[in-house]
Amino acid sequence: MYGLHGKIQSVPGKRDELAAFLLKAVAAMRELDGCYVYAINTLPDEPDTLWIYEVWRSVDDHQASLNVEAVLEVIMAARPLIAGMSDRTEVNPLGGVGVPLTE
Amino acid sequence: MYGLHGKIQSVPGKRDELAAFLLKAVAAMRELDGCYVYAINTLPDEPDTLWIYEVWRSVDDHQASLNVEAVLEVIMAARPLIAGMSDRTEVNPLGGVGVPLTE
Repeated sequence: MYGLHGKIQSVPGKRDELAAFLLKAVAAMRELDGCYVYAINTLPDEPDTLWIYEVWRSVDDHQASLNVEAVLEVIMAARPLIAGMSDRTEVNPLGGVGVPLTE
Repeated sequence: MYGLHGKIQSVPGKRDELAAFLLKAVAAMRELDGCYVYAINTLPDEPDTLWIYEVWRSVDDHQASLNVEAVLEVIMAARPLIAGMSDRTEVNPLGGVGVPLTE
């Protein structure tokens, strides 16, 4: 399994608009076999930031998702709303609720 | 919805033993209506740390889970393995894969 989390900063005041685009991409990601969790969160103290936690079956599944047309379309459309990305952290998911157990 | 993430430090060398206890608690949490995600992760650069991300239907659902007997039993049993907790961060989940959409 492969996990990562990180922040996306929107241009000022556009966080909710950016979130709406990402939530659209979720519809496509739900169809992908290898995507277990893609959780979009806001943070109480950072009004222009989204924080995202993802769990994938493998690094390759995550990589492949970046080439899925429906996902790409949303990323391209959302691009003008993105001011930056930061705090990218890779983790190793062991299992849990909403996440399969590691074999 | 209510989300939080944070770190649990094990006593040195006991991380995997601690993780095994937490994964046992997961079996009980899967039965709880209000628990959407409880993801237990290791971190590549912190050998004695687990990082946990949780999504609950509400703060109350999260609070109530701490009184579920099966969960309590595991927490009590795991206690001697826990050296500390840190980096607790509350977040607002908006939706995603593995997480319902906010109404």
